[in-house]
Amino acid sequence: MKTIQPLREKKNTAILLIYCPDKQGILATVTEFLNKNKGNIIYLDQHVDREEKIFYMRVEWELEKFAIPSKKISDFFDTLIATPLNMTWRLYFSQVIPKMALFVSKMPHCLFDILARYTAGEWDVEIPLIISNHETLKPVAERFGIDFHYFPITKENKTEQEKKELELLKRHNVNFVVLARYMQILSEDFVKNYPNKVINIHHSFLPAFAGAKPYHAAHERGVKIIGATSHYVTTDLDAGPIIEQEITRCSHVDTVQNLIRKGRDLEKIVLSQAVYKHLQRKLLVYNNRTIVFN
Amino acid sequence: MKTIQPLREKKNTAILLIYCPDKQGILATVTEFLNKNKGNIIYLDQHVDREEKIFYMRVEWELEKFAIPSKKISDFFDTLIATPLNMTWRLYFSQVIPKMALFVSKMPHCLFDILARYTAGEWDVEIPLIISNHETLKPVAERFGIDFHYFPITKENKTEQEKKELELLKRHNVNFVVLARYMQILSEDFVKNYPNKVINIHHSFLPAFAGAKPYHAAHERGVKIIGATSHYVTTDLDAGPIIEQEITRCSHVDTVQNLIRKGRDLEKIVLSQAVYKHLQRKLLVYNNRTIVFN
Amino acid sequence: MKTIQPLREKKNTAILLIYCPDKQGILATVTEFLNKNKGNIIYLDQHVDREEKIFYMRVEWELEKFAIPSKKISDFFDTLIATPLNMTWRLYFSQVIPKMALFVSKMPHCLFDILARYTAGEWDVEIPLIISNHETLKPVAERFGIDFHYFPITKENKTEQEKKELELLKRHNVNFVVLARYMQILSEDFVKNYPNKVINIHHSFLPAFAGAKPYHAAHERGVKIIGATSHYVTTDLDAGPIIEQEITRCSHVDTVQNLIRKGRDLEKIVLSQAVYKHLQRKLLVYNNRTIVFN
Amino acid sequence: MKTIQPLREKKNTAILLIYCPDKQGILATVTEFLNKNKGNIIYLDQHVDREEKIFYMRVEWELEKFAIPSKKISDFFDTLIATPLNMTWRLYFSQVIPKMALFVSKMPHCLFDILARYTAGEWDVEIPLIISNHETLKPVAERFGIDFHYFPITKENKTEQEKKELELLKRHNVNFVVLARYMQILSEDFVKNYPNKVINIHHSFLPAFAGAKPYHAAHERGVKIIGATSHYVTTDLDAGPIIEQEITRCSHVDTVQNLIRKGRDLEKIVLSQAVYKHLQRKLLVYNNRTIVFN
Repeated sequence: MKTIQPLREKKNTAILLIYCPDKQGILATVTEFLNKNKGNIIYLDQHVDREEKIFYMRVEWELEKFAIPSKKISDFFDTLIATPLNMTWRLYFSQVIPKMALFVSKMPHCLFDILARYTAGEWDVEIPLIISNHETLKPVAERFGIDFHYFPITKENKTEQEKKELELLKRHNVNFVVLARYMQILSEDFVKNYPNKVINIHHSFLPAFAGAKPYHAAHERGVKIIGATSHYVTTDLDAGPIIEQEITRCSHVDTVQNLIRKGRDLEKIVLSQAVYKHLQRKLLVYNNRTIVFN
Repeated sequence: MKTIQPLREKKNTAILLIYCPDKQGILATVTEFLNKNKGNIIYLDQHVDREEKIFYMRVEWELEKFAIPSKKISDFFDTLIATPLNMTWRLYFSQVIPKMALFVSKMPHCLFDILARYTAGEWDVEIPLIISNHETLKPVAERFGIDFHYFPITKENKTEQEKKELELLKRHNVNFVVLARYMQILSEDFVKNYPNKVINIHHSFLPAFAGAKPYHAAHERGVKIIGATSHYVTTDLDAGPIIEQEITRCSHVDTVQNLIRKGRDLEKIVLSQAVYKHLQRKLLVYNNRTIVFN
Repeated sequence: MKTIQPLREKKNTAILLIYCPDKQGILATVTEFLNKNKGNIIYLDQHVDREEKIFYMRVEWELEKFAIPSKKISDFFDTLIATPLNMTWRLYFSQVIPKMALFVSKMPHCLFDILARYTAGEWDVEIPLIISNHETLKPVAERFGIDFHYFPITKENKTEQEKKELELLKRHNVNFVVLARYMQILSEDFVKNYPNKVINIHHSFLPAFAGAKPYHAAHERGVKIIGATSHYVTTDLDAGPIIEQEITRCSHVDTVQNLIRKGRDLEKIVLSQAVYKHLQRKLLVYNNRTIVFN
Repeated sequence: MKTIQPLREKKNTAILLIYCPDKQGILATVTEFLNKNKGNIIYLDQHVDREEKIFYMRVEWELEKFAIPSKKISDFFDTLIATPLNMTWRLYFSQVIPKMALFVSKMPHCLFDILARYTAGEWDVEIPLIISNHETLKPVAERFGIDFHYFPITKENKTEQEKKELELLKRHNVNFVVLARYMQILSEDFVKNYPNKVINIHHSFLPAFAGAKPYHAAHERGVKIIGATSHYVTTDLDAGPIIEQEITRCSHVDTVQNLIRKGRDLEKIVLSQAVYKHLQRKLLVYNNRTIVFN
């Protein structure tokens, strides 16, 4: 199913995400570099963590009149700015559309939400494939015209299956992975292939109720608010850098089934917001925490 | 596209929605009537408006051992309870699946959200048809296997087109209508055919920013929070009984386009929550306000 | 400092809080008992937990024309209704003003919020005394004209000091205790003297960040939302029945100091809302969870 | 009543709030000016409105080693930076404690909240006086040791009384005014004396329910969420630049009295948050909208 609305024409821009030890003049140095080379800045957000003394920055500029050819920006920036200032940085181009793989199990709400946005042209992304450990959602994938790959997982075959999954991802040049209520824990090995590039949705207000059955645990504890948390996956279960959280109220009248129902709306929105921020290149990770640019 | 998960088995129940002038003993009278006839109550919520002196109630009971045959409940309840107590009431049966028609224009997000829930089996509803004044969303309807009827509207043909729409709705025994970002104002005549049975989503925090272009108006006013409102349609534009409202924060960094983007998530959730409450028979309207049972 | 506004004239009412095993006809039985004896019901809220099969109810009625003298209501209700239905219940009279003791340490924000409401006449309560393990807030107590008792606590004297505190509370006929950021853990012994009658505010979204320094822990974890939780104190630290929770958003720009500052507003509001609900007799505890009537 | 906690030692800093037509290099120019003169920047936030092409900035730097003497900063900055770049700007020094006057009527909740924060040392501000059109809250002012001035207002004496109030404010060098539920409309003349320096709290979610009795109007309309709005006062009633808004949920069970009670908590928090932001020099007004720096 093709997008039903034409994608708006995109500006041809470059985006830099940077962090480095804070010192005087970094901001001026970067903006001067861009200005001097006729890069018209259309976005700039920066933050200094005064305690850890780290400078963070996201800057986006138009390439049209930029004096440095796109292919050489990395080299020039690295040599002239980044290396002297001890920067960790990444460069993105708005016209390179990232490729995203979806991992799902049986629950369709997050999958539908993502495919609806994709089809509606809300996001600049390609979804070459969907991977699942169950066949339940195959019909959904088919209706949206996306390849569906079934990898049943058992204790015995897990290593082997993940290897095949990784090969598949590489073959499709997948840039990042979204776990849309994928009910399998990815191995350390898998995660290391996509550092800060696997986004998960956990159906609780982390760090409360990490692990399995959070709505049951929330009901048992008698909380008055439930939540959902999107985060990058690390090798520590449910402990990766938090991207977004959202909550909704509940009360003694809510059964576990009600919490699950209410939670679905949280989960899909919070996951999609995280994917959107990731696609916008507005996320930086430092020290297991995210910087979320405006 | 059929539902991907089997609907859970439904209990065979009856639901009464009641309001009447408050006086001593109404609650006891109704519950006694049900208990005496072996109707096992599985839900009861009531509210008394002490100022307007109105009693509201929703009660649901199992029909399995109920002594009064389903076809005769209305007659018995009306004669024995409702008429003496001057009640306005409605009786529903859980096993009668309501029929809902969707009206859409060009924006797909609410449509997708509803069709996703429908397909996922979240709701007990049938959607026999989608009506639109544009052809934009026809491919979406087709993918989900739902009839799509195109009724272009002009000043000149509006009366005639609405007449045809109404005929279509009657032919399909449609019980209620959901305007999923339908960008046409329904005529008084149309609305009167479906009193408290047309649910609309307005993309603002009503009564703020009624009418057209609310996100533009919100941006212009510099608000720090935007909202969405689902309501029953009455003959007064954007002034019908409010069912649900939700908000999200914004700031000076948000352009109108950003507000529109953030608003989409509010709109689809708030509309779907209203439809859910309606389907659950948990909404009563009195004096242009809703009672929303738990 | 006396209240600056006269308390509105209070209706002379009785309130019953009830729970019992669910079965047919309980609601009818209770309301019939009140109606038959000319008790005009001005509030009724009930809930049935269908899973645990427990019936909960709060009912309030006017005593003016009630046929049973106030002193005998307990006896009559117990014999005629409660015992046959195996009820756990409590009876309160609106004209009996409860006595509340405040425990504080050094932080004044919750104390000020409570004393402001008290002085403004928002609550029907008496505050005969404030107890503290520090002298910091003595001037605040004095300005509001409330006795301040200083009980410094050490490991060695804790048992003895708590004993004196308990004697003081008994002497003043204190009905319940509010820990307004009291930074001492009450002993099991103390708590057992006031079961479900000690209200605490914890400065996190429980069960996340129980224990000490929750804002530091929240900052460390990089959460996007912080919260506060009011709960009844049990012998398990931060694990008692939750009464109310509230949250506010935060981001990577917030230092620990900022979280502490934002959290103060949550803490004082969430604590005062819990006290209000308690004073309104709208809280029931069952199985370490609260039922919060409307 | 003096502050109960010593104010933390304050850094000696200068703060610049700036807006101007956007063009390349503004940010670099300002930061370079500060860096070159050894002003250690401890805060920087900027925003560009790409549609209106306006650049906004807040920058704070330490004065300790700053090469330009404090008295000359204005002159130097104006000549070297602001005039060439067509800037509107303001300079503040952290060690100059602003003077705030409170206007109140009969309701104490906002007054208490502000005085509690003041006494607790939460804010760097002086409150030389409280002005009221009623004597109700005089005892509160006295307890907190603040001068209370009673100016009864009638149609006839309003102009004259406001004149006296203004004289009093000038005599005390009052920098800004906070209307803590002051139930009188200030004249155009008064407001012009304090442009963007009078902060009001309106007890609704503006622009919904501007004017009198918003809770009654909200109840009548049957909204599911109520709000409060703090804003700078302009000569248009309830139409000034919005600083902060907050909401809380309500339902059909809430009487007008309940909405008023719930609203009090919103009002006091939202007003105090606005005052805090104002004191932090984090508010800029442009085109009847606020820029609220992080």
